[in-house]
Amino acid sequence: MQIPSSGRSGGSHGAWRPSGVVSLLTDFGADDAYVGVMKGVLLARAPRAVPVDLCHGVAPQALLHAAWLLKSAFAYFPAGTVHVAVVDPGVGSGRRILVARDRGHAFLAPDNGLLGPVLSKEAEVRALDVERFALPNRSATFHGRDVFAPAGAALASGLAPEEAGELAPEWRRAELPTVVEANDGSLRTEVLYADRFGNLVTPLGRERLEGGPARWTVEIAGVELSIRSTYADAERGERLALVGSAGSLEISVREGDAARELAAGPGTPVLVRRRRS
Amino acid sequence: MQIPSSGRSGGSHGAWRPSGVVSLLTDFGADDAYVGVMKGVLLARAPRAVPVDLCHGVAPQALLHAAWLLKSAFAYFPAGTVHVAVVDPGVGSGRRILVARDRGHAFLAPDNGLLGPVLSKEAEVRALDVERFALPNRSATFHGRDVFAPAGAALASGLAPEEAGELAPEWRRAELPTVVEANDGSLRTEVLYADRFGNLVTPLGRERLEGGPARWTVEIAGVELSIRSTYADAERGERLALVGSAGSLEISVREGDAARELAAGPGTPVLVRRRRS
Amino acid sequence: MQIPSSGRSGGSHGAWRPSGVVSLLTDFGADDAYVGVMKGVLLARAPRAVPVDLCHGVAPQALLHAAWLLKSAFAYFPAGTVHVAVVDPGVGSGRRILVARDRGHAFLAPDNGLLGPVLSKEAEVRALDVERFALPNRSATFHGRDVFAPAGAALASGLAPEEAGELAPEWRRAELPTVVEANDGSLRTEVLYADRFGNLVTPLGRERLEGGPARWTVEIAGVELSIRSTYADAERGERLALVGSAGSLEISVREGDAARELAAGPGTPVLVRRRRS
Repeated sequence: MQIPSSGRSGGSHGAWRPSGVVSLLTDFGADDAYVGVMKGVLLARAPRAVPVDLCHGVAPQALLHAAWLLKSAFAYFPAGTVHVAVVDPGVGSGRRILVARDRGHAFLAPDNGLLGPVLSKEAEVRALDVERFALPNRSATFHGRDVFAPAGAALASGLAPEEAGELAPEWRRAELPTVVEANDGSLRTEVLYADRFGNLVTPLGRERLEGGPARWTVEIAGVELSIRSTYADAERGERLALVGSAGSLEISVREGDAARELAAGPGTPVLVRRRRS
Repeated sequence: MQIPSSGRSGGSHGAWRPSGVVSLLTDFGADDAYVGVMKGVLLARAPRAVPVDLCHGVAPQALLHAAWLLKSAFAYFPAGTVHVAVVDPGVGSGRRILVARDRGHAFLAPDNGLLGPVLSKEAEVRALDVERFALPNRSATFHGRDVFAPAGAALASGLAPEEAGELAPEWRRAELPTVVEANDGSLRTEVLYADRFGNLVTPLGRERLEGGPARWTVEIAGVELSIRSTYADAERGERLALVGSAGSLEISVREGDAARELAAGPGTPVLVRRRRS
Repeated sequence: MQIPSSGRSGGSHGAWRPSGVVSLLTDFGADDAYVGVMKGVLLARAPRAVPVDLCHGVAPQALLHAAWLLKSAFAYFPAGTVHVAVVDPGVGSGRRILVARDRGHAFLAPDNGLLGPVLSKEAEVRALDVERFALPNRSATFHGRDVFAPAGAALASGLAPEEAGELAPEWRRAELPTVVEANDGSLRTEVLYADRFGNLVTPLGRERLEGGPARWTVEIAGVELSIRSTYADAERGERLALVGSAGSLEISVREGDAARELAAGPGTPVLVRRRRS
């Protein structure tokens, strides 16, 4: 996984220097006005903020998909970015909102597990002081607009995460699907999600493929595949596995759609074995 | 409806101070280049403008859907925002383009009714001087690029709406579906649109629910529902009604899709009755 | 085709003055995080860059669709825009990446033909010095993030295209579907793509319709249509042809979907004949 250093060490220590960039990750889709309104609130309160859509195509309430995308993406943004993640089936309940600082970035997300796979041990996690940031007459159903956006605007304008709430010694952590090693050294995991090209993304990282990807084969949906370096090593229409752009195992069809061809998706088991040689 | 004050009084009076933000609302969808080209024109003519996608998922030519979104969203943007709405089945006909100033914001939209539900009585509405703003050799089919974008750029750069055209004493106003009160005090309305989560949005505002939402029940598609405060008050998969984020009645399924489950959509009748108690 | 002059002559000559705008054209769709991550990299390396989505709805690997959109759109952007086009089925193979300067704009795209229909004869085309721009540990599958975005950031920050690689005397040029003239003066071409409204876009330019569009008729899918000036010249639901916003022949249904009604799409033959009068 080739995440570049974000050029700041010390994570939660030192002064907070916002870049002005606010990344937005939601399950709101591309077809409604929810994201647009959030940007309106952001720009009304932080006129120099630069809202960037990280992704709004998370399946409704798919926490793990969102967590994986944020984990894989955040460090590519400028140090000082505020990452706002609103996949929030518990909106309106008593669930807290977390504000965290980690490796030079700030994070806002519901306390529903989403930040579990994202944050490192050096993260400082707090419970957002919701009353302080919420718009007047906030709704019970759209905290993206009424709480997350004004809080994100405050962080993007210079408020340090440490000033945005009390430390949260406990918070919820979802876990990505596991990679289980059997006695014979084979690895079992499952598909995390399918992207628009039908690539099936798993959480199995390159570092688990001892001796290099070429020494392993992949079994999914009754089909056995070898692991190639890149799409171009396969013929058009050929099925293959490879280490994808997030540094983890993916199953693909060159210029085709693996999700459709293999009738696979989130949860489909994946077995990875050493090549007999 | 919790629209925050936009921080300017006087609406159409006083100096026009653009924020630089230009919100874009169209039925162009997320898959074509039409919106991208509009932004190109905007930035070519107003290099400091900040284009923001309000929504491009309006169903083709669905004026009322667009009107509702704009009405519900505009005041969340900074004062001095230019709102450009291009849902324009009459493009190429003689229909005028309106430029309006209302409550500190500027609006550009076809004279096809769209601005009816959006503007207040203090709005100053003019017919845009199209010839003055149009790109050379404008097309007959894409005024978003050839007229709206250059006019929006001029407003975002400081041209006051009052200088962009002659006063329009008459202009077209579409009307949102009505809320009709029967002799027995029950209210009849209809679904305005379904969002990406399958929530069914109606125009019936919270202020119509005398005594508070909990005192009323909702009937839709042969099903009777109580009105809850938030999704979290229902079980997963349970159907419910609530006052949604635009301050109006919505019908939902918690972590489900009400539009699909109830086979409902724009135009589906909704009956709201006082609880027998 | 009403492309406005971009206000600079000399194209590849003279100083490179970036506008800061970076247009992004991909087949990544609206539902994944790929585009968001590219913007993160852009802003990390060029904090003042203004990323603009030109279009991400190109069908996977549809080079000609992408080429047509870029050709039709680029000149609407400010002079000094960097246009980044990533439709790249050969990613990970030895294919080069091209960097070009043409008519005041800069272009980055794989050397897979995409730039063929876009660039003029005065374009200066180079092979990008990939090693110089690539992120450390670049992936084999996502050069949009690992190569295109950092190279785009460099150009947007002031690096001249001439400094980004060696001249490429040879490079690949895809060709748009041809327009063939028969002995009787009729013209044959085919549909290039269908947009979100179901409009069927062809590459047949207005200049081929000698004497003006009204003198010609169009045959597609067994149906004969006359060429109107604009949608408003047809009844609702009526099929028509017209010269669309890119200056080429399109087949439409007023307030309907021609692609669906005619069961037509990319490759469907189109025959254009002089009216018998």
